[in-house]
Amino acid sequence: MNAGKLIGIVGGLGPYAGVDLVRKIFGQTRAASDQEHLPVALLSIPGKIPDRTSFLLSGKHDNPAYAITEIILALEKIGASAVGIPCVTAHAPKIFGTILRELEQAGSKLRPINIINEMSKFICTNYPHITRLGILGTIGAYQSGVFLNLIDQKKSKLVLPSQSLQNEVHDAIYNPKYGIKAQCNPINPIARDKLIKAIDQLGNLGAEAIVLGCTEIPLAITEKIIESRPTIDPVLILARALIREIDPKKLAPLDVG
Amino acid sequence: MNAGKLIGIVGGLGPYAGVDLVRKIFGQTRAASDQEHLPVALLSIPGKIPDRTSFLLSGKHDNPAYAITEIILALEKIGASAVGIPCVTAHAPKIFGTILRELEQAGSKLRPINIINEMSKFICTNYPHITRLGILGTIGAYQSGVFLNLIDQKKSKLVLPSQSLQNEVHDAIYNPKYGIKAQCNPINPIARDKLIKAIDQLGNLGAEAIVLGCTEIPLAITEKIIESRPTIDPVLILARALIREIDPKKLAPLDVG
Repeated sequence: MNAGKLIGIVGGLGPYAGVDLVRKIFGQTRAASDQEHLPVALLSIPGKIPDRTSFLLSGKHDNPAYAITEIILALEKIGASAVGIPCVTAHAPKIFGTILRELEQAGSKLRPINIINEMSKFICTNYPHITRLGILGTIGAYQSGVFLNLIDQKKSKLVLPSQSLQNEVHDAIYNPKYGIKAQCNPINPIARDKLIKAIDQLGNLGAEAIVLGCTEIPLAITEKIIESRPTIDPVLILARALIREIDPKKLAPLDVG
Repeated sequence: MNAGKLIGIVGGLGPYAGVDLVRKIFGQTRAASDQEHLPVALLSIPGKIPDRTSFLLSGKHDNPAYAITEIILALEKIGASAVGIPCVTAHAPKIFGTILRELEQAGSKLRPINIINEMSKFICTNYPHITRLGILGTIGAYQSGVFLNLIDQKKSKLVLPSQSLQNEVHDAIYNPKYGIKAQCNPINPIARDKLIKAIDQLGNLGAEAIVLGCTEIPLAITEKIIESRPTIDPVLILARALIREIDPKKLAPLDVG
């Protein structure tokens, strides 16, 4: 089927983050009718993809890179010409590097947009004076060093929560009862409260912006400004990058709140 | 790629209704972690699919059935074993019948779930005593007679808004400035007000339940009960039917509010 240029999305990491990315692609597109929207394919096959943090911390599971690569190849087969992976932890070098290598070996022309590089460019462009970035993320992402690539392009500093609050942030995402992955509609207030507590601490530690460094977090923290600090939403940034890749004229003006 | 049983969704009619269906599939699934969610593929290619109402009223465009069939065949190619079309107007006999015939001629094993039949069964099961159904929908759907199939299974009556309010409901969906298809996040209050006005009239005319008979409408009317009448949401019903087709054990208990 010739769909024109097609945006491919590796969903399922987690499922709701994949849906949030599709919704944000539509929301960031200049369109007044159905027909003016861009072609998008979402492939959400979470049962095939081992948990990213579990792999990074324990090494017990297979590298999720292999399943992610398979999904990207399936998206390519139906015509995707740009692809995004709405999961920050999957951009840890051990996973993302393996995806790039596997795609090359498979002869794929697709290379997923790097969400961390896009966040870094976004911060430089839209918040040139901000140098202290408060970081929320999974334990896997914190420990993988993936956030260090956020500050490649300028002399910024990462502000991290205390170890115990890092655990609370992780729990807000993963808890099987009240975590965002388990309960998304509506978000359980326990999950949101834990994130707010960490945001408070990041503010006290001097953070000037709050990086929602896991694609589940913008499902619970939807504010553009929180406690007078801008939030940096990787899903919104990836949505805009994918539109730019496919058809830059369709990109709606940015509203940073 | 072997994804196990895969739910396929024909998106793009409109784009936000497709996303809403994916979100509702996840919301209606018993799952406490990413990996416990069902595999879903959404193919949203709105630029290929002519407007359903324009086709039904003017006959000027190609029958959207051909593009919808192509998308279903692409979903089948990547492994879909059940498929849904989140668009009530596309279930008008002139369109839906052609899809079924084209799929048969193409040798496809897939037959999309019929959203109208599912709504009819849902109403019989969950609201056995309700016999007067208030109907909101597009002009194309009203005029196609598709809603008559809602009352096949029991002696119900359809309660329709006046002609001028049917036009207002259509406008709430289609207006290029404030309509749901053009402005979804957030919904423009003008669109919602027009729907509420029609719901008021349906209530005055004796409707006991309000059928949100266009998949865009539940994006603006999210209440399960409105003005003391239950709403019948085709997107929720289709989500549950797709889960039931793929893995009935995964279906969460129904909450009708």
